[in-house]
Amino acid sequence: MQTFVPPKGTRDCYPDDMIIRDYIFNSWEKTCKRYGFEKYDAPIFEYMQLYTHKSGEEIEKQLYTLVDKSGRQLALRPEMTPSIARMIATKGPSLKLPVRWYSIPRLFRYEKMQRGRTREFFQLNMDILGISQPTADAELMALSIDTMRDLGLTSQDFSIHISSRTLLEELFLFSGVKTEKLPMLYSLLDKQHKMPESDFNTILSEYIPEKDIQNTIKKILGITSIDEIRSINSSLKALADLDTVFSLLENYGLSDFAEFDIGIVRGLAYYTGIVWELIDKNRSLRSIAGGGRYNQLVKLYGGMDTPAVGLAIGDVVLTELLTEKGLLPKMTPRSDVFVITFDKKSHDHTVKIAQKLRNSGINCEFALKPMGIGKQMKQADAARAGIVLFIGGEEEQEGKFKIRNMKTGEEKILEKKDVTTVLKNLLPPRS
Amino acid sequence: MQTFVPPKGTRDCYPDDMIIRDYIFNSWEKTCKRYGFEKYDAPIFEYMQLYTHKSGEEIEKQLYTLVDKSGRQLALRPEMTPSIARMIATKGPSLKLPVRWYSIPRLFRYEKMQRGRTREFFQLNMDILGISQPTADAELMALSIDTMRDLGLTSQDFSIHISSRTLLEELFLFSGVKTEKLPMLYSLLDKQHKMPESDFNTILSEYIPEKDIQNTIKKILGITSIDEIRSINSSLKALADLDTVFSLLENYGLSDFAEFDIGIVRGLAYYTGIVWELIDKNRSLRSIAGGGRYNQLVKLYGGMDTPAVGLAIGDVVLTELLTEKGLLPKMTPRSDVFVITFDKKSHDHTVKIAQKLRNSGINCEFALKPMGIGKQMKQADAARAGIVLFIGGEEEQEGKFKIRNMKTGEEKILEKKDVTTVLKNLLPPRS
Repeated sequence: MQTFVPPKGTRDCYPDDMIIRDYIFNSWEKTCKRYGFEKYDAPIFEYMQLYTHKSGEEIEKQLYTLVDKSGRQLALRPEMTPSIARMIATKGPSLKLPVRWYSIPRLFRYEKMQRGRTREFFQLNMDILGISQPTADAELMALSIDTMRDLGLTSQDFSIHISSRTLLEELFLFSGVKTEKLPMLYSLLDKQHKMPESDFNTILSEYIPEKDIQNTIKKILGITSIDEIRSINSSLKALADLDTVFSLLENYGLSDFAEFDIGIVRGLAYYTGIVWELIDKNRSLRSIAGGGRYNQLVKLYGGMDTPAVGLAIGDVVLTELLTEKGLLPKMTPRSDVFVITFDKKSHDHTVKIAQKLRNSGINCEFALKPMGIGKQMKQADAARAGIVLFIGGEEEQEGKFKIRNMKTGEEKILEKKDVTTVLKNLLPPRS
Repeated sequence: MQTFVPPKGTRDCYPDDMIIRDYIFNSWEKTCKRYGFEKYDAPIFEYMQLYTHKSGEEIEKQLYTLVDKSGRQLALRPEMTPSIARMIATKGPSLKLPVRWYSIPRLFRYEKMQRGRTREFFQLNMDILGISQPTADAELMALSIDTMRDLGLTSQDFSIHISSRTLLEELFLFSGVKTEKLPMLYSLLDKQHKMPESDFNTILSEYIPEKDIQNTIKKILGITSIDEIRSINSSLKALADLDTVFSLLENYGLSDFAEFDIGIVRGLAYYTGIVWELIDKNRSLRSIAGGGRYNQLVKLYGGMDTPAVGLAIGDVVLTELLTEKGLLPKMTPRSDVFVITFDKKSHDHTVKIAQKLRNSGINCEFALKPMGIGKQMKQADAARAGIVLFIGGEEEQEGKFKIRNMKTGEEKILEKKDVTTVLKNLLPPRS
């Protein structure tokens, strides 16, 4: 007999896993709304040229491509930024800027499977479009930190590592690196910590044959503070934006989380300014989130000149971190009430009573075939029911029902006519 | 300049559309939970043979297929039932049956574009596995009716049309149709109302050349009640289950919605018993939902013998119906509070106050670059803010803030120290 499994790199999501996924997604949504962000979505596949146009070679290699029955070249979305840029470009001047938008897209990248990586995964994407000032970068950084705080993570658990593509560009050009070498250099630097130093050196010498420039690059990567840069060259233009962002984060009350990290480069080709990542303090995981400015992308997709800044948090690494810190929720009751009948011949009666509870907003279950009390109790356990309501027995003949609190074992007799009111009052408020 | 659009058959989902999608999805989730259903999900693509194995030719023709970089033959999911059957099969005896599961999958079918149809769409899928009795069918019918009621639809707007594959099989075999003709006959009958009568007759004569059998089939399709069938042949086995279902729906208090409709067949190959559809009263739309028993599928995917019944509601036709009936929600405030500053030089101050509100759970926005009061008010309007909080003006120097209710225009002065408490009390409760 053939066995059927989920395709390599994908995961089934059974109800126990779904509780965790929903817990994280609900927290993300709540925090985004606290910052006035609106939700959007885009198709799960796009015309291939949307990605080949600007995301860079790295992404292209990882695309799941398909051809539809009319020969259209499509690709499953590997990231959300091209889609939002396309959507903004399409609306043109009819859209009131700035917009604060978020989405929780399912994404696909054909990558080597390893810890913290699956080929099908989710991200929280947050973008502010229409603001060129670093106030938007700081607002988005604050939001990204708050999504983590809402899940119970603190400055003991993660930091936000901030740098600037503009700053690196200024430093590298100043050191003699040619403009056309920058994209490959960024891509190499983004992968620096994922490869042996000897490999890094080999590739670097291929890209930049000049020994002295190589050494300057390495010196630049050794810089640990903005003040150190200022002491080398205080006239760099990128410094002002970085200063603003760090000062704003202080006003947001989030300085504890923020550090300057010249090693943050981001792999994608379209970044144009400040870039940042959220990284766990132990640095034992891949980066939790990454983002930055991409001021050119909307225009590249045929839209108006639209400054933009965006950030994405992946679900896989974040879930690992939350598991490690013991911050994932315990299993909660699935049903408020499980109705158990002594009169197993009368399914009609059970249905009538259950439906009365459901109509009043109570989450309610019952056995769907005749069985003894013991087996019904087992089903109530499996349903993680908060309360069991016993019907069809002697109590009911006297106009009463018995209920049992499944956590404490406490039992109570109540008037039949009061049942929905009493049960509703016993239930925990819906979150 | 190249323009970029969403691929044919797909839709962008801008925030205004997303409010509607989320409204429907949230209602679906709430109702499913009321019936004790747990949420699950599966990968968005599966190995192709999962569909070629059992869904039938119709679905195969509509598959979006892809080949991954290791040569795996994959297909975007066109329906959810094969995935849930596979997941149940995988768990085998470790899974406590029955299960009540729901999911809101994104699905893909390469179909001809027409009203009520897109190539990328969503469904609410609800399944009960592990119960062979028609009590499960009735429970699922009740849930499907309640999902519609929760959205404001009544028995004036839609009905549940119930039939049985087993009944049709008995009637057809009894009339001389050969067993091997049944699948193509079901597929034809499922499309009967979507084609001209002459086309139907032509195809029917191809499948069933015998004139007398053709006529009997047409007579069967003209039957309007279960009693009529009973008067022809009261010994048909399928009648008992249908009787139970109709009687149970009465106990659920849902008889007003239910009607017997021998014309309901369902196109998919795997149905084995009772089948039903939700159809709008005017019959001006495609069917809103469809489902039925599929007792063989889990076993076919290598699992244990598992009776199952399932139903899917599509989002496209349902949204059309809700639009037609004026039942979609109005635009609600995006932000609770928009902070407007008189002192446009001090973004720091704005950030501090906004962050205080956010930290207390208030959804809050402010302008991200310096601008006059008029422009800030315009942004507050665009954000559909419920309340505007004015800061940095004369009032603040006296230790007070002014707030304005954006709906009524009413203004109020409050003590600076009370601001979060007062604002929280003014806000509508979170739904």
